Amino acid sequence: MTTAKQGKALDLDGSRILIAGAASLVGSHTADRLLEAGVKEVVLLDNFAFGTPEAIAHLKDNPRVRIVRGDLMRLHELIAATEGMDGVLHLAAYMTLGFSQTPWEAVDVNVRGAQNMLEACRVNKVKKVVFASSNAVYGYGTGIVGALAEGGPFHSTGAPPAAILYGASKIMGEQLCRQYHQKYGQDYLVLRYSTVYGERQHYRAANALYIMETYDRVRRGERPVLPGDGKDTKHFVNVADVARANVAAFRSAATDVAMNISGPEPVTTGELVQLVLDYCGSTLEPEIKPDPPGTVRLTSGGAFHIPHDLAGEVIGWKPQVSMKEGIRRLLAWREAQEARAR
Amino acid sequence: MTTAKQGKALDLDGSRILIAGAASLVGSHTADRLLEAGVKEVVLLDNFAFGTPEAIAHLKDNPRVRIVRGDLMRLHELIAATEGMDGVLHLAAYMTLGFSQTPWEAVDVNVRGAQNMLEACRVNKVKKVVFASSNAVYGYGTGIVGALAEGGPFHSTGAPPAAILYGASKIMGEQLCRQYHQKYGQDYLVLRYSTVYGERQHYRAANALYIMETYDRVRRGERPVLPGDGKDTKHFVNVADVARANVAAFRSAATDVAMNISGPEPVTTGELVQLVLDYCGSTLEPEIKPDPPGTVRLTSGGAFHIPHDLAGEVIGWKPQVSMKEGIRRLLAWREAQEARAR
Repeated sequence: MTTAKQGKALDLDGSRILIAGAASLVGSHTADRLLEAGVKEVVLLDNFAFGTPEAIAHLKDNPRVRIVRGDLMRLHELIAATEGMDGVLHLAAYMTLGFSQTPWEAVDVNVRGAQNMLEACRVNKVKKVVFASSNAVYGYGTGIVGALAEGGPFHSTGAPPAAILYGASKIMGEQLCRQYHQKYGQDYLVLRYSTVYGERQHYRAANALYIMETYDRVRRGERPVLPGDGKDTKHFVNVADVARANVAAFRSAATDVAMNISGPEPVTTGELVQLVLDYCGSTLEPEIKPDPPGTVRLTSGGAFHIPHDLAGEVIGWKPQVSMKEGIRRLLAWREAQEARAR
Repeated sequence: MTTAKQGKALDLDGSRILIAGAASLVGSHTADRLLEAGVKEVVLLDNFAFGTPEAIAHLKDNPRVRIVRGDLMRLHELIAATEGMDGVLHLAAYMTLGFSQTPWEAVDVNVRGAQNMLEACRVNKVKKVVFASSNAVYGYGTGIVGALAEGGPFHSTGAPPAAILYGASKIMGEQLCRQYHQKYGQDYLVLRYSTVYGERQHYRAANALYIMETYDRVRRGERPVLPGDGKDTKHFVNVADVARANVAAFRSAATDVAMNISGPEPVTTGELVQLVLDYCGSTLEPEIKPDPPGTVRLTSGGAFHIPHDLAGEVIGWKPQVSMKEGIRRLLAWREAQEARAR
């Protein structure tokens, strides 16, 4: 049984939910699930700096969907956008690549942007905030081994600055939520997604991109590239499972707790490549290749996994999509997309 | 022997050094040491939001000192202030109390302010940045036990949001330095001060303030208050030692490394109170009292210490001022100050 603090559950039927950073993989899938759950309105907020109109193209003519162009750095826009909202899903964030390439914008959005959104929610008495965090709060480098459970520390030895900046920015985002809870009673839940992948995947997530890169090589008849010895661990989670977790978080009465959202089990790079080869029906042999200098990876190659038992206890969620099924869906979507483009 | 990366040492004789957040305990003492070391000019930058003119009153008529009112959130002011500077000591920061009471300003100064200063240093080709960090990068709560050495992770379980925000903001500041080093070759050193105390102490540092509070009670004839069982550990460092460390950091050729700056040894709360009682020649018995709810402390009471061996190896520094001597200096200063006021 969970010992999570109890706030108020949100009855999604007839409610209004805003998604910040909505023109995205997780945003678009979550909007689909919220509409299925009977919400009255979904507001899709994005500044379209990275989010693409394509990601939400299937939603734009839905009468229950409203697309709002807004920027997390402009508090007044957030106050206007959250007026009348029952819940807010805060997805908007820069990741490690962003902290490397555009560190000013990344600092803005991940720290001040989160603070602005919480302030807007306070002003408009938004009942529940679901804050998208990341397993980056456990850090990177040689310390990342074994189970990365919710009470664990943040490791950084041997990691590049951009990765540490990203992780620390997510720690700050989580703590700003806690601060608004303690100061103003704001109900919130933090979901720490592991590496999200799936249909409508964008091209900023370095780890998720690897599935696509492998697929592209195999289809060109090139051998897939296996960094290191292929035993590097990754722990993905399919976007369908993440969308279900977001909905479950809104529906849960739990508050003031952070939980991991990860796939059924971790996968090694070798297994991942084999799943793509199997999907393609290819017999190509993977090519083992050391990472180029400066490559940013979650770990230094240690075996780790991200337990999601707490999410089971707190919001009654567990992942349903296996890596094999998730890769099938992703690559089938990719093929359908290309067929349409031809 | 150190394996620290080597940049260029700064010849302080004839050099120009800017101190950001200069109207402060550490700032004023470091300015004194820099002037002794023969610098041509010390620029004392402060926005005087917390810094007080009193802290630098003894310096204001020195022809080698220039006081500049400037704000870390205004990049153009930092670019103007760092023009022609050889070195920058970046002290300006909000601490845990600031992240609790004024979290917007704290986020601004500790994250964006550090980024602004690094950018100004890049623009003006400042040779060396010494960035004041904190043992807060090891975090708080139940994880803080034993030696807090430089490779250790950031703990946060059981800690209040403001403390975690402060620690994470310092992690970000350090990593922004590393990023400027990697991207632009900026020479820098990070000094992680433990709890600084000493003459001209200000009233924002919750832990250092305890010495003064104890002294005030004893002089009023009240029993000093001992939180918990008096075995709570604190690891102070005297401001004279910190000022020497800052000077040593400028003079060192080492770059791109973070090191602890801590006093000779940790002290328990019980020992600390006894030192104050001894100084006052008092036989009052300490009163044991549990902390009020919401009290912010570095640890949950575990025994810990902060080794400073790396600073010995990298910049040839070790602390000289014992807790007994440091308390004597602090309280003698306090008495002299009050005598002047009468």
